[in-house]
Amino acid sequence: MIDIILVLNAGSSSIKFRVFEVGAGMKLAMRGQVDGLYTKASFRVVDPQGEVTRTELQPPDGGELGHEGAIAHIGDFLRGHGEGYSVVAVGHRVVHGGQHFTSAVLATPAVVDELDKLSPLAPLHQPHNLAPIRIIHRRRPELPQVACFDTAFHRNQPEVAQAYALPASITDLGVRRYGFHGLSYEYIASVLADYSPVAAAGRTVVAHLGNGASMCAMVGGRSVASTMGFTAVDGLPMGTRCGNLDPGVILYLIDALGMDTRGVADLIYRQSGLLGVSGVSSDMRELLHSDDANARAAVDLFVYRIARELGSLVAAMGGIDALVFTAGIGENASAVRKRVASLVGWCGLDLDDVANEAGGPCISKPGSRVGGWVIPTDEESMIARQTMALMG
Amino acid sequence: MIDIILVLNAGSSSIKFRVFEVGAGMKLAMRGQVDGLYTKASFRVVDPQGEVTRTELQPPDGGELGHEGAIAHIGDFLRGHGEGYSVVAVGHRVVHGGQHFTSAVLATPAVVDELDKLSPLAPLHQPHNLAPIRIIHRRRPELPQVACFDTAFHRNQPEVAQAYALPASITDLGVRRYGFHGLSYEYIASVLADYSPVAAAGRTVVAHLGNGASMCAMVGGRSVASTMGFTAVDGLPMGTRCGNLDPGVILYLIDALGMDTRGVADLIYRQSGLLGVSGVSSDMRELLHSDDANARAAVDLFVYRIARELGSLVAAMGGIDALVFTAGIGENASAVRKRVASLVGWCGLDLDDVANEAGGPCISKPGSRVGGWVIPTDEESMIARQTMALMG
Repeated sequence: MIDIILVLNAGSSSIKFRVFEVGAGMKLAMRGQVDGLYTKASFRVVDPQGEVTRTELQPPDGGELGHEGAIAHIGDFLRGHGEGYSVVAVGHRVVHGGQHFTSAVLATPAVVDELDKLSPLAPLHQPHNLAPIRIIHRRRPELPQVACFDTAFHRNQPEVAQAYALPASITDLGVRRYGFHGLSYEYIASVLADYSPVAAAGRTVVAHLGNGASMCAMVGGRSVASTMGFTAVDGLPMGTRCGNLDPGVILYLIDALGMDTRGVADLIYRQSGLLGVSGVSSDMRELLHSDDANARAAVDLFVYRIARELGSLVAAMGGIDALVFTAGIGENASAVRKRVASLVGWCGLDLDDVANEAGGPCISKPGSRVGGWVIPTDEESMIARQTMALMG
Repeated sequence: MIDIILVLNAGSSSIKFRVFEVGAGMKLAMRGQVDGLYTKASFRVVDPQGEVTRTELQPPDGGELGHEGAIAHIGDFLRGHGEGYSVVAVGHRVVHGGQHFTSAVLATPAVVDELDKLSPLAPLHQPHNLAPIRIIHRRRPELPQVACFDTAFHRNQPEVAQAYALPASITDLGVRRYGFHGLSYEYIASVLADYSPVAAAGRTVVAHLGNGASMCAMVGGRSVASTMGFTAVDGLPMGTRCGNLDPGVILYLIDALGMDTRGVADLIYRQSGLLGVSGVSSDMRELLHSDDANARAAVDLFVYRIARELGSLVAAMGGIDALVFTAGIGENASAVRKRVASLVGWCGLDLDDVANEAGGPCISKPGSRVGGWVIPTDEESMIARQTMALMG
């Protein structure tokens, strides 16, 4: 049997997992996911060499698998795999740690009850993130579990960076800017010195540009401001989310167009962003290859909004020493990086086109006042490390 | 009889007016207002020397005066004043000109019908702005009237600066960033060269900081970006408005707290901003003199958000040559200007403390890379000028 840390990222209809072998370096052994928890379940595993195993799951009675069945299936698979994996701890991605959790925490039943109180702040994610913790509590109460938060990294931002200009009767309920993608930013902060001591010690903006997208301003590796707010819909436009939007638009959608909040949530979370503007696709690769005017408009808006938010974050730091691109689009779309760089030359970034095309890691010219970098993120490694750290 | 341009700014419960004598310089002859249109009406006139005349209005039947009665009262007053004023044209402040009105326009009945279609975009203002135009059409159909818009100055911004990342089904209804305070910005643009040819020709941010507050980025005197969006609630925190707010907060207020849209609108328009955060006052003068921690927090947030938005606007312009403060707080609160300057030194503004205390107009040191200015705004003069220009 091989001791492992199991990392779980549970949503409403799928559970993703990664297996890290305990020991020097916390080696990734495999990753996989169960999809279609409440429709037609499927199971997929990819080994470190990229080899894919796909298994159609047949729930016993032909009905839904559910979170409970998915957790059981993953557990059975791990015990039966090769010489067998022994799970020593489970690390969970939990979107919301509220105001008080500033780092990962042992997810005791009492802590899970506490975290569940935050569900109204993230109704689409929090309950699903917590479900597997409770299921594993019941099945294996002795197994240590750790909750790792997307919000924790931002909790030491200055108060003005977290506050909305609302009365205390509302802000006291927890209505503040939480920022998200914290596990990604914390990972980047943890490896930044390997790339650039100046960026690690100085004022750095990290642009996490994936299907979800946000930006974080770090000074000395600590978050001082970020573009996402109370929810993960604010800030940059994303694959299907609108990003920054006048709150008055929501009142207009309801009062003048007769929409209900469910319809509004569907609009701003799933029908907007790159997909909404282009009318074609939420996938940056498709948009970059398209000649369609609306596809171009979507890319134009994405790039412009990044440049605007960069300016706002430079203001939060009082200047800038480095800009880091990460996540799917940030790591792979050299055309997006180039266009962003062309808009932010004013801040002192001088892009090296050849290095940018080659994917970096350094994409700025030697004399550039601001360093440009491409650094792959790894949120699951961050969860495994935080989990291991709490094992002592 | 003296020929005058009458400038009207009509709200839901009051009508403000100014009288400009036609001729060289368009001299302001007097200003006044009727308050309490639907409660206890009162009338107030201030002459150019600042002398106040107050008249209690007694509606004939003891009931409400209404917009009709107020217009009649102002007309009677002007005809009967001194040697008598002859109104040659009326200029109206109209908050919303939609996507198509890029300058002031003769307010024919057909144009007013067109503008009324924009009322759902600004339900708290647009109908009241239009009411006096229709009343005067009925009373004096031959009198030229001009609609001057708070949105027009921003309509030539680049498309990316006006667009939200929403699908065409929504944006085609007119859901875009309109920006407001355009009459103020246009006035500043018109006088900027008198203060600084560099600011007039270059990249300038104007901070209109009054009870309503916004900022505008101008290149060569033309608006390229602004902080207000679809409505006048977005952007900077204001006296009682929240400014920038995650749209997810609105869904939370409705879904989790059970508020209705009327309650939400009341919260974000009338209970937030400086008043909401301080819990004390919407008046910057009071807050600056207060030792209360919440009053300080309100000022901190106001100043911080100005600095963040400044960064975003610098990005929109690709750099900055000048920063102009205007409107109540911008013209009078040297402490606010000083604190903003202390946060935006990164962009090259070196404040001259003595000149700032003295109120400018130039408040930057001679060697400052970015010029700092205090310039009084005058939206009503702008309306008078636009009205006169359309008279030919």
